[in-house]
Amino acid sequence: MPDRRFRGQGVVPSVWRFLIGPPLRVREASKEQITPVEGLSALSLDALTSVAYGPEAIIVVLAVAGAGALHLILPITVTIVALLAILVFSYRQVIDAYPGGGGAYAVSRANFGAGVSLLAAAALVVDYTLTVAVSITAGVGALTSAFPGLSSATVPICLGILAVVTVLNLRGLGETARAFLLPTMVFIVGLLAIICTGLVHPLALHAPQPGRPLLATRALETVSVLLVLKAFSAGCSALTGVEAIANGVPLFRQPRTVRAKRTELMLGGILGTMLLGLAVLARRWNIGPRSGQTALSQIMAIAVGRHWAYYLVSLTITLVLALAANTSFGGLPVLASLLARDNYLPHLFSLRGDRQVFANGIWALAILSGALLVAVGGNTLSLIPLFAIGVFTGFTLSQAGLVVHWWRARPPRWRHRAAINGLGAIVTAVATAVFLATKFTEGAWVVVLAVPAFIALFVRIHAYYDRSARAIELGHVPGKPQTKRTVVVIPVTGLSRLTQYAIGEALSISQEVVAVNVVLDDADQSAEQAGDLQEQWARWNPGVPLRVLSTEFSSVAGPIARFIDELRERYDGQIVVLIPVVLPDRLRYSFLHNHLDLVLTSALRTRADVVVARVPMPIQLESG
Amino acid sequence: MPDRRFRGQGVVPSVWRFLIGPPLRVREASKEQITPVEGLSALSLDALTSVAYGPEAIIVVLAVAGAGALHLILPITVTIVALLAILVFSYRQVIDAYPGGGGAYAVSRANFGAGVSLLAAAALVVDYTLTVAVSITAGVGALTSAFPGLSSATVPICLGILAVVTVLNLRGLGETARAFLLPTMVFIVGLLAIICTGLVHPLALHAPQPGRPLLATRALETVSVLLVLKAFSAGCSALTGVEAIANGVPLFRQPRTVRAKRTELMLGGILGTMLLGLAVLARRWNIGPRSGQTALSQIMAIAVGRHWAYYLVSLTITLVLALAANTSFGGLPVLASLLARDNYLPHLFSLRGDRQVFANGIWALAILSGALLVAVGGNTLSLIPLFAIGVFTGFTLSQAGLVVHWWRARPPRWRHRAAINGLGAIVTAVATAVFLATKFTEGAWVVVLAVPAFIALFVRIHAYYDRSARAIELGHVPGKPQTKRTVVVIPVTGLSRLTQYAIGEALSISQEVVAVNVVLDDADQSAEQAGDLQEQWARWNPGVPLRVLSTEFSSVAGPIARFIDELRERYDGQIVVLIPVVLPDRLRYSFLHNHLDLVLTSALRTRADVVVARVPMPIQLESG
Repeated sequence: MPDRRFRGQGVVPSVWRFLIGPPLRVREASKEQITPVEGLSALSLDALTSVAYGPEAIIVVLAVAGAGALHLILPITVTIVALLAILVFSYRQVIDAYPGGGGAYAVSRANFGAGVSLLAAAALVVDYTLTVAVSITAGVGALTSAFPGLSSATVPICLGILAVVTVLNLRGLGETARAFLLPTMVFIVGLLAIICTGLVHPLALHAPQPGRPLLATRALETVSVLLVLKAFSAGCSALTGVEAIANGVPLFRQPRTVRAKRTELMLGGILGTMLLGLAVLARRWNIGPRSGQTALSQIMAIAVGRHWAYYLVSLTITLVLALAANTSFGGLPVLASLLARDNYLPHLFSLRGDRQVFANGIWALAILSGALLVAVGGNTLSLIPLFAIGVFTGFTLSQAGLVVHWWRARPPRWRHRAAINGLGAIVTAVATAVFLATKFTEGAWVVVLAVPAFIALFVRIHAYYDRSARAIELGHVPGKPQTKRTVVVIPVTGLSRLTQYAIGEALSISQEVVAVNVVLDDADQSAEQAGDLQEQWARWNPGVPLRVLSTEFSSVAGPIARFIDELRERYDGQIVVLIPVVLPDRLRYSFLHNHLDLVLTSALRTRADVVVARVPMPIQLESG
Repeated sequence: MPDRRFRGQGVVPSVWRFLIGPPLRVREASKEQITPVEGLSALSLDALTSVAYGPEAIIVVLAVAGAGALHLILPITVTIVALLAILVFSYRQVIDAYPGGGGAYAVSRANFGAGVSLLAAAALVVDYTLTVAVSITAGVGALTSAFPGLSSATVPICLGILAVVTVLNLRGLGETARAFLLPTMVFIVGLLAIICTGLVHPLALHAPQPGRPLLATRALETVSVLLVLKAFSAGCSALTGVEAIANGVPLFRQPRTVRAKRTELMLGGILGTMLLGLAVLARRWNIGPRSGQTALSQIMAIAVGRHWAYYLVSLTITLVLALAANTSFGGLPVLASLLARDNYLPHLFSLRGDRQVFANGIWALAILSGALLVAVGGNTLSLIPLFAIGVFTGFTLSQAGLVVHWWRARPPRWRHRAAINGLGAIVTAVATAVFLATKFTEGAWVVVLAVPAFIALFVRIHAYYDRSARAIELGHVPGKPQTKRTVVVIPVTGLSRLTQYAIGEALSISQEVVAVNVVLDDADQSAEQAGDLQEQWARWNPGVPLRVLSTEFSSVAGPIARFIDELRERYDGQIVVLIPVVLPDRLRYSFLHNHLDLVLTSALRTRADVVVARVPMPIQLESG
């Protein structure tokens, strides 16, 4: 009876297994039933945490025109909050219309067909990747603002957080919502309290600020319309993530839609309050960009001083931003699996791993966003121009899809509902156009190239799967299987129990077996060895002929491939190549054996006319 | 008839094939027949180019005691040249005794047996690796001395040169000696001419020197014996490589030994002259260490000015040092293949690649020396304390082995010959002891750890191969092969031509075939699909039962492994798992198919009780 060790499901090194955890049963995978408050932590962190970079993005753009332009943050933020209100009401209607989860891909697939849904899918892929990168860099920004000494290690810290998030997601996050509840509450309550302190306390605790002001030294110039539009579009990055609740309706407790709509309203209220409060404080204290410190960190430091409350909330912001990155890890792998099932991505993405998660999607997202983090050197502001375009494209497609949905279904008050979603669609479409126009040269062109590239990839993959399904007549009842004669080819290097075992296995498969031995043409030694082998073979007489193949080249794979060609010419049946391999009792010894397997398997991998099989023989060694 | 594309020997991307060249026949591999002058370029570059770092290493040690100690370079160099003379005459005798090539491993294996030969082999592995690293860093040092602007890119340039040398060696160097002749001659003649100019021209062309002096500012202190010994041992790095001619005797034209001995003498004459000349000039001009400029570069610049001759010879030095690194690539892979044949290294190292070179040994050397280059940041001087110990250990073992050889063979004048080699053995043993004592804390401890570690590795691998040879009774005539009943298990996912084809192949192997289909327990959809499949299967009736396996986990490999366990319990025969795979006409499409293959092959790889086979079915698609 073979050793238990040989019977596992592959070799997963134990450290990795420890990190990832044991395999989960399907029913062990979480089916959470969450409340509205839990919904905030499970589905809204991406949106709520955008206060960490949204106001900052506005300030940086305005500062280009000098300190006098900074007061514009207030009207711009009011506009953004108005847009937020429209989005919140639009998405409450999405929840009504698609209680099964209304992602942009699903909604546009239902209402506009496959073509438009691919645009939504491509925009979402870009969006998820950017959300991970922006959330992590912004979180590390909060950390290095509080602890300036860490700023030289920005990129490694970013990648470290990415690695932790990736591993947690490969484990599967089980009780996500509940675990995220505490930091989310600390973040919401703490930040609101700091804002209130700043608002009610006119002589807020001024603290000396590290870093130097980055404000342009020139006096106020004429503020152009373009600049205001740029600042607006940069600030719209604060609205990313408001769609997540509508995607996650099935997670809520019954009555689902009611609870989800309540959560959406809470999100809008909290996010709007925070944005407005921060804008008022930023204006009052004339917050400008500063090296090594984010605008949010400056506001918090002035409001409460660099004391425990400041450090606690700063650390919490880093944590919740990391958790916000995590929401993309919930989204992209599921989207990729849907695309894979619809034949738009390789089927690999639809495989669940041991832990019931779509591991390949998680890896793909980690690699994409890691590359992005390294490319921008961990700098949030260079990602902002790329961000929001994908999100707002999704917004527009969802809202426009909803208009079509209401038009088709015509429920009571459908005109009213269509009007709300229509307004949402128009406003977000205009915003998307503004983003593209104002940020094209600053990085938005990357998205403009990436989205069509993804669409082209999806279309090509889909076309390929169509053709290959026709080629193998997938789903049709095929003809009867045809049997053929089988000849087995066994490469051997000498006489041993391994040779005996492999020939036994070969004879069990077919009566026609031929052993082959490759010798180098020019090496006298090898020729001699081959002679010896032939003689020993004759003495052994295993009932199988030995064929010695000589080669002028040094590879053993070449002569065997040519021998198969030769066999193929005079023989119409099936050719099986059996490669004998030794399976030592410690796997680390494997690389000491079986180089024939290594060379032959890769050489024969692309041949369509042979079946390649490995015959493993376990060997138990005396220890030593 | 399958497409030609399926019949190659694996997929070697075309760029790589272009770099490496087409496969070579055994007889196309070069069998060079070289003359003594060609022998200098083919076998002596390692030794000759050590003038680029040997004198420098002495100066750096002496400078610790202040400018007044620099004059000691002359007596120390005279001692080293005397040692060189002893080595040259000793190695001329090695050539007589081992006309088949007398490497330290072969000589000590013949005269002292396997144990001592492993010490020689370990020392050689360390030596080859260090030669590559030292030659490349010294070559880049010559380059950055001439062009100081390049000095910030030292490590990338080092790695670039290593990459070029590696690729050239993977090609196989064919007409090596002839191609190396021109730069070798330019180097020898040019450097000797520069030295002569410096010697005869008392008012040598002083040129302004870049870099700043690194000399200790304090006045002359008492020069300790330890310091002199340290300077001597550092300078002995100039003697590395004088053994290479004796290793390469079979390369020479007949009469081989006469020509090889003449080459050894030429090498000794040229190297000795260069070392002495440089020492005289260094003393006369009081050359001290200087940032960003090597001592050799300073001497050349003072002798002829920073003009065309200086730049020509500097570039030539970089080139010949790169070629010197190349000699290790000739040595280590051959040594590794000998060790692999003697079961001291994995047999992988004894495989020749397409180009008749031992590709795995070349890769191993490139990785080891690349790691070393990065670890020391491309700095020659931090490698010098590690260098020479391995080489001198080899010298001692060879010479001592020769004494034993003469004692056993007792040819005419054997006492005289044994005396010369005995002197060589004693002097080099003393030098080795000096190196160890003086340079232990400066890095020699690395070698002191590495050599026993390699020996331990060799011994463990050898013991393992012994045990496994006994376990599989290698070389014994085994019993008759036993045949068994065979049952074939085919995992299927649906009906298609692929399923039909694979079942046909399975029925060709055995009458007992069972198809298995894995469904997820909890997913209503999958259960339904499985029901559909069973119905379709019944309609198709291929003569093979379908077994539906349900799983609570998400992996398909687990249920199949458990099914095999179950089968194994009630069945004593052989179990073959046939994995149907699609082989598309473009290999880049492969990753769109066959994820079942990917998952199952790795999961079943460590099972000793099943034969795993892939059944490839080629599909030709309409292009699109």
